[in-house]
Amino acid sequence: MGNKLTKRNEDYSKWYNELVVNADLAENSGVRGCMVIKPYGFAIWEKMQAGLDKMFKDTGHENAYFPLFIPKSYLSKEADHVEGFAKECAVVTHYRLKNAEDGSGIVVDPDARLEEELIVRPTSETIIWDTYRRWIQSYRDLPLLINQWANVVRWEMRTRLFLRTAEFLWQEGHTAHATEKEAIEEAEQMMNVYAEFAEGHMAMPVIKGLKTESERFAGALETYCIEAMMQDGKALQAGTSHFLGQNFAKAFDVKFASKEGKQEHVWATSWGVSTRLMGALIMTHSDDNGLVLPPKLAPIQVVIVPIYKGMEQLEAIAEKIGPLLKELRGKGISVKFDDRDTHKPGFKFNEYELKGVPVRLAVGQRDLANGTFEVARRDTLTKETVSENEIVQKIKFLLDDIQKNLYQKAHDFTYDNITEVNSYDEFKKVLEEKGGFVSAHWDGTIETENKIKEETKATIRCIPIAAKNEEGTCLVSGKPSSKRVLFAKAY
Amino acid sequence: MGNKLTKRNEDYSKWYNELVVNADLAENSGVRGCMVIKPYGFAIWEKMQAGLDKMFKDTGHENAYFPLFIPKSYLSKEADHVEGFAKECAVVTHYRLKNAEDGSGIVVDPDARLEEELIVRPTSETIIWDTYRRWIQSYRDLPLLINQWANVVRWEMRTRLFLRTAEFLWQEGHTAHATEKEAIEEAEQMMNVYAEFAEGHMAMPVIKGLKTESERFAGALETYCIEAMMQDGKALQAGTSHFLGQNFAKAFDVKFASKEGKQEHVWATSWGVSTRLMGALIMTHSDDNGLVLPPKLAPIQVVIVPIYKGMEQLEAIAEKIGPLLKELRGKGISVKFDDRDTHKPGFKFNEYELKGVPVRLAVGQRDLANGTFEVARRDTLTKETVSENEIVQKIKFLLDDIQKNLYQKAHDFTYDNITEVNSYDEFKKVLEEKGGFVSAHWDGTIETENKIKEETKATIRCIPIAAKNEEGTCLVSGKPSSKRVLFAKAY
Repeated sequence: MGNKLTKRNEDYSKWYNELVVNADLAENSGVRGCMVIKPYGFAIWEKMQAGLDKMFKDTGHENAYFPLFIPKSYLSKEADHVEGFAKECAVVTHYRLKNAEDGSGIVVDPDARLEEELIVRPTSETIIWDTYRRWIQSYRDLPLLINQWANVVRWEMRTRLFLRTAEFLWQEGHTAHATEKEAIEEAEQMMNVYAEFAEGHMAMPVIKGLKTESERFAGALETYCIEAMMQDGKALQAGTSHFLGQNFAKAFDVKFASKEGKQEHVWATSWGVSTRLMGALIMTHSDDNGLVLPPKLAPIQVVIVPIYKGMEQLEAIAEKIGPLLKELRGKGISVKFDDRDTHKPGFKFNEYELKGVPVRLAVGQRDLANGTFEVARRDTLTKETVSENEIVQKIKFLLDDIQKNLYQKAHDFTYDNITEVNSYDEFKKVLEEKGGFVSAHWDGTIETENKIKEETKATIRCIPIAAKNEEGTCLVSGKPSSKRVLFAKAY
Repeated sequence: MGNKLTKRNEDYSKWYNELVVNADLAENSGVRGCMVIKPYGFAIWEKMQAGLDKMFKDTGHENAYFPLFIPKSYLSKEADHVEGFAKECAVVTHYRLKNAEDGSGIVVDPDARLEEELIVRPTSETIIWDTYRRWIQSYRDLPLLINQWANVVRWEMRTRLFLRTAEFLWQEGHTAHATEKEAIEEAEQMMNVYAEFAEGHMAMPVIKGLKTESERFAGALETYCIEAMMQDGKALQAGTSHFLGQNFAKAFDVKFASKEGKQEHVWATSWGVSTRLMGALIMTHSDDNGLVLPPKLAPIQVVIVPIYKGMEQLEAIAEKIGPLLKELRGKGISVKFDDRDTHKPGFKFNEYELKGVPVRLAVGQRDLANGTFEVARRDTLTKETVSENEIVQKIKFLLDDIQKNLYQKAHDFTYDNITEVNSYDEFKKVLEEKGGFVSAHWDGTIETENKIKEETKATIRCIPIAAKNEEGTCLVSGKPSSKRVLFAKAY
């Protein structure tokens, strides 16, 4: 067929870039590192947003909106935090342009310099905790459970569509609690919400775990994460949830009067997922023919392509399709009848295959005569003929079955590619020859972590929550270890 | 009662500012001119977004996302456009901070200066038309009907919550068409969509019209608008829709091959509404007791306040309320049962009055015994006792009736305050003594428009679409005029 993508086993990275552009998901813009999310890609992101937003609200969170700009002095208040973000941020220094006096065009007006520079938010802890100081006085104001959908900017030098862009879209939850215990429970809850979304909506299995100290968020005491395995065996961090302790409350002087009337600093969490999830979705399911979408996130779940010669035949098909469209839409199924006469059926088949539409129906003259449809499923690329009496049932079954099948396939792939090793040689061999996640004992030191990273490019993706206690010795230092951790090369 | 707001007839502007803050809608942030939209205010904005988004999709538009940053050279490509926005824009000049060498803190790294400055988008025509050049080759690619929900920045010197802020949230539609006629029809359609939303959802009557040349969007050939009258008689521009001609297509070289194979420049529109609508909503309906919300936009449509002494009584009420909550929610009605034991009923009554919840139910021991509820409606501040058998019907009726009543009241107020005048003396007298909109003949020149603005502060809000042809003479110049236009002082 005609979707001329590079094959995954030839060049996975090239395949990814071509697919993102050719399937109309996103493209690079004229602004360095910033992408344009195209309508089809954005429609998938909207479905992700809707799914997550409902889960946030069901767990008691409300949305709000905080400023895009962060005064430089705010960013500096939490030492680790500024260290983490200062090196890659967009800085607003002026508030006006003017015509150059020499007529050479439009220039920055030097008289319009800001007294204090503003940073385009790379994340919003500082501006939000500056606000929470005004909102929190008493234990009655807690917990404060707030989420924001927003754009953020991190001046990355090497960018890739969805995976790493200077500007990206995300949500960031910021919560305030009366006790350490509650804040930790919140951070854990949101990791679980993310895992549920990844597995239930994206059909993407994830490993829940804790980050090591060196991989923690700048300003966090503990970072919980979900890690997914891409088809090329590399890991992708799909979501993080941070227990921030009292760091930001102390930096921004946010105290509350406890039930006992004592002034105490507030406990905090923050958690986020971003348009990076689009990259994760693509690299979990898609194939050499194009995008493969789980039905729950597909903007078009079913497409119907008429096969006809002349307007009379098209009208006969349209008449037949009318009630089916209505019935499917009535059941909340998103269906498109592609009756464009500017493109041939073969072109349309290719287009919907490339765009990952889960179920495709074709109807020609013989189908009209026989009362049948040709039904194709995108995940297995198989086709069958289905009678019109059974078609609605069949579509419902397929949408459900494709969702399950994609999850199962990705699940099997992930767990087939987690390898336990007990020596550093074996570690390097597996990483080199098989890839995937390597489960190994580690002595808990940053030195060992750095050494492994330098020598193999693998990082500790997480200390899995589900990891059992098991006596062992560190691969590198030979020191005792009581738990295996997961290493991988990562996006 | 206890909502100590300044009265509207004492100081309308002060009343507005107090209400926005006290009703938990928004507040100023630590960043000059940027607001924090608080959860309750944001919940109203979310309802506006959902209503508008559905209307955009029903008229064939899709959402997408374009970069936050606009290279300075892009902004300069359309002459009127840069003239309109250069004087008030946030300019990013650097991409890194560093530790000052003298240890004085974090400073901008002079080595990280951008080659070309980036403007934080004040509107996105330029970056979008730069993109459309890649998307449009043939008539088959048209029309292109795209909308974006985004934040934008205009460096306003005097800001007011929702009405004029440096950063605000909005949607901006950007469409491309093969013909002038289609583009004009689109611009008109979107003005009508905005009017329908304002009147149908916000219960806010609007006048549809055209802007005069001096009030047009920078780069537009024609600006359509909806204008609303606030309670103090001032006008508020609630939405604009621009016919851009081929200006941006020419500036960004966007051509298409027509059916006849000719290369032609594309025709364009853009249209937007913003969080300014929140200000319009507040100033259309609210009263000295606080916010008044039309049920279609109220985050909480019905609140139930229990009146009790001790846990036993509360439990009896909760048991009674359970099935009612379920039934109302099943009907899609948003209802809150406020069983907080940290606050007294009187405090809660005040709170929901201040927050504009349309319907309030109270249940005490006598109600329990009699099988009744005390029902209060926010718009008229009236109360009645309703039997439990009739309560669901009553609530449905009230939500519908309040929506209609608010619209009717605002409609009557608006049309009672549009005054036709035929001399400049009368014009000044009406503007001074009565306010509102003044309908008068104008000679069509910018000179007269400016003279009137300088002398009275009134501007031409619009040339109403519905204005009849009528022979007359200009108030100021005495020259002939064939239509009345609307003047007012404006937000």
